[in-house]
Amino acid sequence: MATITVPHPVPDVSEDCEQLRKAFEGWGTNEGLIISILAHRNAEQRKLIRRIYADLYGEDLLKSLEKELSSDFERAVLLWTLDPAERDAFLAYESTRMWTASNRVILEIASTRSPYELLLARQAYHARYKKSLEEDVAAHTTGDFRKLLVPLVSSYRYDGPEVNMALAKSEAKILRKVVSDKAYNDDELIRIISTRSKAQLNATFNQYNNEFGNAITKDLKSDPDDHYLSALRALVKCFTTPEKYFEKVLRLAINKLGTDENALTRVVTTRAEVDMQHIKEEYQRRNSVALDRAIRVDTSGDYEAMLLALLGHENA
Amino acid sequence: MATITVPHPVPDVSEDCEQLRKAFEGWGTNEGLIISILAHRNAEQRKLIRRIYADLYGEDLLKSLEKELSSDFERAVLLWTLDPAERDAFLAYESTRMWTASNRVILEIASTRSPYELLLARQAYHARYKKSLEEDVAAHTTGDFRKLLVPLVSSYRYDGPEVNMALAKSEAKILRKVVSDKAYNDDELIRIISTRSKAQLNATFNQYNNEFGNAITKDLKSDPDDHYLSALRALVKCFTTPEKYFEKVLRLAINKLGTDENALTRVVTTRAEVDMQHIKEEYQRRNSVALDRAIRVDTSGDYEAMLLALLGHENA
Repeated sequence: MATITVPHPVPDVSEDCEQLRKAFEGWGTNEGLIISILAHRNAEQRKLIRRIYADLYGEDLLKSLEKELSSDFERAVLLWTLDPAERDAFLAYESTRMWTASNRVILEIASTRSPYELLLARQAYHARYKKSLEEDVAAHTTGDFRKLLVPLVSSYRYDGPEVNMALAKSEAKILRKVVSDKAYNDDELIRIISTRSKAQLNATFNQYNNEFGNAITKDLKSDPDDHYLSALRALVKCFTTPEKYFEKVLRLAINKLGTDENALTRVVTTRAEVDMQHIKEEYQRRNSVALDRAIRVDTSGDYEAMLLALLGHENA
Repeated sequence: MATITVPHPVPDVSEDCEQLRKAFEGWGTNEGLIISILAHRNAEQRKLIRRIYADLYGEDLLKSLEKELSSDFERAVLLWTLDPAERDAFLAYESTRMWTASNRVILEIASTRSPYELLLARQAYHARYKKSLEEDVAAHTTGDFRKLLVPLVSSYRYDGPEVNMALAKSEAKILRKVVSDKAYNDDELIRIISTRSKAQLNATFNQYNNEFGNAITKDLKSDPDDHYLSALRALVKCFTTPEKYFEKVLRLAINKLGTDENALTRVVTTRAEVDMQHIKEEYQRRNSVALDRAIRVDTSGDYEAMLLALLGHENA
């Protein structure tokens, strides 16, 4: 469930555009006005605003925002204003350029979006970067990570609810064998995890748990410092309990010495319209503190206001 | 260029449907009438005919055709009548089920369709088989072939004309190294061939030829009986000169002791609306005989008439 709130009735698009233009004009920028509009419009409405704004003022709204805003607040507003597929393309592109073994962004996009959303991100990637997502991932990653990430971003999984239980049993056995042998980069493991539907994978992981007495994520913990193993665990979580995966990203981002604003901004802007309500509940349960409160402590100013607005604060 | 001919003005869809229904009724089937309609309608028109036919008679046209027709003629009419994306899904599905190392259908679909057409085929595969194309390919192929085919069918290449010449040079060098080492299943070779755009691949292969004095297809001939090597050569051809690839498939199908009707039907039905004119010219050049004539010699009856109609014979 989404957390953003949209006023009823929603103001006319051209009025939104005029107000935004007004926020940019004169001495200083009216950040509050920008938040009060953009943070309270859904993806479709923001898209329309961008189109009409360009018609009215002959400039891409993103360009105007870039000129007026700065630092973490700028990044949050820009990411939020982007169409979700364009945003994913942008985040993935950025990640390939500064890829490290601990970077989870590509994996996260490949596994927490619906198969069709991933496809739209790949199309947006073509349009924006004149290349395919998979060729950039292949060119900028190495070793086991490349072996895992390229098929992941290339997948177009079946998205239906049908589950083949016999297959779940046989593939749980394959996974068990691979995990027992510590052959974590095995072709079969990668085949299963990068091609099967999420419903099927869920059944397979359940079967693994039932048959072998342990969650596969537990068995993938033989070496807690191994980045590849930790990526595999993250992947299983992304497929089965994405809210727990995102909760952990937020927890680590906030509890870090020096907040990880990039991770915080990414999770809030990409999930506010999807499952942020669920993630908030998970955060409260796991940390005994509300996510909003944790964010208030760790951030400030317009950036804080923007994040809180996306988390559902009406007057932020 | 396509070879099929469509009458001007094209008859009303409901009239086409009535005529088809008439062809199925009474004693015997009027195959000539079926050909005269379906073989002379383009994909969009056939799609409309299927929809209106189902509305009018409460039965899928494909079902009616299946009941009335038989053997090679039936297969040709059914394949032709299918929407191109559905047809590719069907052919790919069939191929995974009877996959052998000499089967080129999956490779052909993955490399001779545009990136977007391949995507449509994957969507049709979901809709029809409740699974993804890549999971079936992964589950039914093995070894080097799996390593090659899964990324090939998963690719969504960039489709623009932009070429990076520095990249073409560096990747031609990589390919040369791989080929010299006879490491034909090397990760880098598979990465390049399964992710780069066709324009980029073409530049890379040209660069290879310029720099090392041999076409890469020539260097991939170290063992003419190796099915995997021959698949790699076929793949390079599919990317750079698809008409030559298809000419060879037709040549082998026709010159076989006992024509290979499946291959013949596949190439004619999948290319008649795309580049069959080009393939015909290539066939004439390579065999000093017209494709139409070769088909006349090797086939007969309604099947022959159907193929010739798709090759552009007005009165077939």
